[in-house]
Amino acid sequence: MSVIKLFSNQDAIPFIGQVHQKRPLIHCITNDVVQNYTANVLLAIGASPAMVVAEQEVEDFVAIANGLLINIGTINSHSAKSMLLAAAKANQTPWVLDPVAVGAALKYRTEIAKQLLTFKPTVIRGNASEILALSGQQSSSKGPDGLDSTDSALDAAMLLAKKYQTIVAITGETDYVTDGEQVYSIVGGDIALTQVTGTGCSLSAIVAALIASSEDHLKATASACFMMKKAGELANKQQGLGTFAMSIIDQLSLFTTNKDF
Amino acid sequence: MSVIKLFSNQDAIPFIGQVHQKRPLIHCITNDVVQNYTANVLLAIGASPAMVVAEQEVEDFVAIANGLLINIGTINSHSAKSMLLAAAKANQTPWVLDPVAVGAALKYRTEIAKQLLTFKPTVIRGNASEILALSGQQSSSKGPDGLDSTDSALDAAMLLAKKYQTIVAITGETDYVTDGEQVYSIVGGDIALTQVTGTGCSLSAIVAALIASSEDHLKATASACFMMKKAGELANKQQGLGTFAMSIIDQLSLFTTNKDF
Amino acid sequence: MSVIKLFSNQDAIPFIGQVHQKRPLIHCITNDVVQNYTANVLLAIGASPAMVVAEQEVEDFVAIANGLLINIGTINSHSAKSMLLAAAKANQTPWVLDPVAVGAALKYRTEIAKQLLTFKPTVIRGNASEILALSGQQSSSKGPDGLDSTDSALDAAMLLAKKYQTIVAITGETDYVTDGEQVYSIVGGDIALTQVTGTGCSLSAIVAALIASSEDHLKATASACFMMKKAGELANKQQGLGTFAMSIIDQLSLFTTNKDF
Repeated sequence: MSVIKLFSNQDAIPFIGQVHQKRPLIHCITNDVVQNYTANVLLAIGASPAMVVAEQEVEDFVAIANGLLINIGTINSHSAKSMLLAAAKANQTPWVLDPVAVGAALKYRTEIAKQLLTFKPTVIRGNASEILALSGQQSSSKGPDGLDSTDSALDAAMLLAKKYQTIVAITGETDYVTDGEQVYSIVGGDIALTQVTGTGCSLSAIVAALIASSEDHLKATASACFMMKKAGELANKQQGLGTFAMSIIDQLSLFTTNKDF
Repeated sequence: MSVIKLFSNQDAIPFIGQVHQKRPLIHCITNDVVQNYTANVLLAIGASPAMVVAEQEVEDFVAIANGLLINIGTINSHSAKSMLLAAAKANQTPWVLDPVAVGAALKYRTEIAKQLLTFKPTVIRGNASEILALSGQQSSSKGPDGLDSTDSALDAAMLLAKKYQTIVAITGETDYVTDGEQVYSIVGGDIALTQVTGTGCSLSAIVAALIASSEDHLKATASACFMMKKAGELANKQQGLGTFAMSIIDQLSLFTTNKDF
Repeated sequence: MSVIKLFSNQDAIPFIGQVHQKRPLIHCITNDVVQNYTANVLLAIGASPAMVVAEQEVEDFVAIANGLLINIGTINSHSAKSMLLAAAKANQTPWVLDPVAVGAALKYRTEIAKQLLTFKPTVIRGNASEILALSGQQSSSKGPDGLDSTDSALDAAMLLAKKYQTIVAITGETDYVTDGEQVYSIVGGDIALTQVTGTGCSLSAIVAALIASSEDHLKATASACFMMKKAGELANKQQGLGTFAMSIIDQLSLFTTNKDF
């Protein structure tokens, strides 16, 4: 059994600095709900987002991007084609798969996600239900908000990571990041992170930016998880969830100068 | 002639509580402008939003969702197909039709909206111009912001409700909610609600969540209208319209704990 | 060589007033990232936005709109068709082309942008890299955030304006607006405008609203640039980039009443 190492702010700080320094260009093929939030999150952490989605363009753009995000949240037959083209082209470009809502209820996207897996994402970031589904196990999920605990999916995550030689991040109350051997845990955050849309999807974008800025993909992924949890802790939730959603972006944009971090 | 009953906060409170308790999964096929705002509004009131749009998936997802929203704001031939499949499947699932900008100027969407009507939405929520257009009457509308008063459309709303055995909500300075027999009016709100995008569209989503959480669809629909008007009243508009838009979500998220409500 | 005239708040004020008075209906075919932000920016300045995108509808809607915006940021084969239909129909309607990320790296959109140019946009609004690319010159751009200075693109902008009898706005640290003969410069703004998404895209929407409200398209375009720079200066950036993004809309909505303007 693996020892789970707790990931700290001291571990994350160098990775946060590197994304600001390298300003990676992140090619996003993501869902319709979070396009704006994702772009603003990437800008807030110092990366450069670009949403290029046409099947005529995705291969050209993967070739010049520093990182790629594929999120299947609002997948359709056209975006599926673009995603498969981009993933096939990304063998030199680190990329993240966010398998939103895969599972028994939604066979179409689950099939596409499995095809995407064959192109070996650098990182898979999902909730416990999605990771269980991708690894072929039973899940209680019926929508994008999984109901399984991350603890219950850790074994599946490790198997999945080994099978596809990838890194798997399962996020929830406690996040786990594993390459199939090592496991980092990230604690903290705030329940309100589950009450605004796009915090998981934009975390996947942060992962793409951090793995595009560092060779140590495992710690870069854990650092991304750390950033979102910390932003959730620091964000203003007294005024309500609308302010909280904006305040997450505020906090992400202040990390390099915020002494409370 | 029907007596119009004024709907009060005391009437709305139980319905607001029920959506928090039941946390309904709301399947949204909505327009590109308001995807994020709609998801955050649904989360703020305690519902669970899911935007699933592919024609390969919509029927599977309607089957597990507790409520469905169809909003034709940025309809195209692909989303039209998904909407028709979802509506046909929704005979056991309460659903809302938001017929954005139907009328003489836009024949394509008006034709699709009429096809959707044949699948008997549980509720139709629109502005006066849209309701007039759906019922085949003259309107002065030329875009998504109708120019007709809700008073002028009340008769049309009642006829439409009777014809399709549905509930019609016409929203504007005064909102009216009718099943063709009873009529509730909801007053209050704030003119600024017309100066940010998505307040009408996300109101339709609130309707979907509330009818998914209660058997009394008429009062549930009126409660949804009440929630948006009250959120508009309580939201901070001193700082400008950007803050106001976020503050509406703030207020919706505070309803269960806000003693000013 | 042309004299460059500095554009002032006194120059802009009448144009800001006219858009509030005329409330033009602006037909937007824009990218998926900025739909909501663009709609809210247009509402904030007193215009009426409408996102109508289906190829079955765009010609009907151009015919009743007061202005048209075409932004190719997330172009695909379907939206390209709609854009070309709308542009062809817009010979009586003032319209803006925002050629997001055109250049050598993305041949598909660059080809579509050139086809759109043949329909003579009233205004082209882009960053220096995009304007250089459209005029056939070398650029260092590899994404939506151009790396060239606006000074380096001014000659190209003037040639482009003359060739297509249009107005070209190049925006960046200093904005330039030219019809090929006269040149206005707009200074000020804030570096944070480059750190949130949609400020350029929504500036193009403001241009559409202002040219729809005035016969003097050159000064109307310069006024739009002035508005975004001034909103960026006045917006709250102390709390971070999330608040800053919303505060830009706040400031735009307060221009007619703000004595600091």
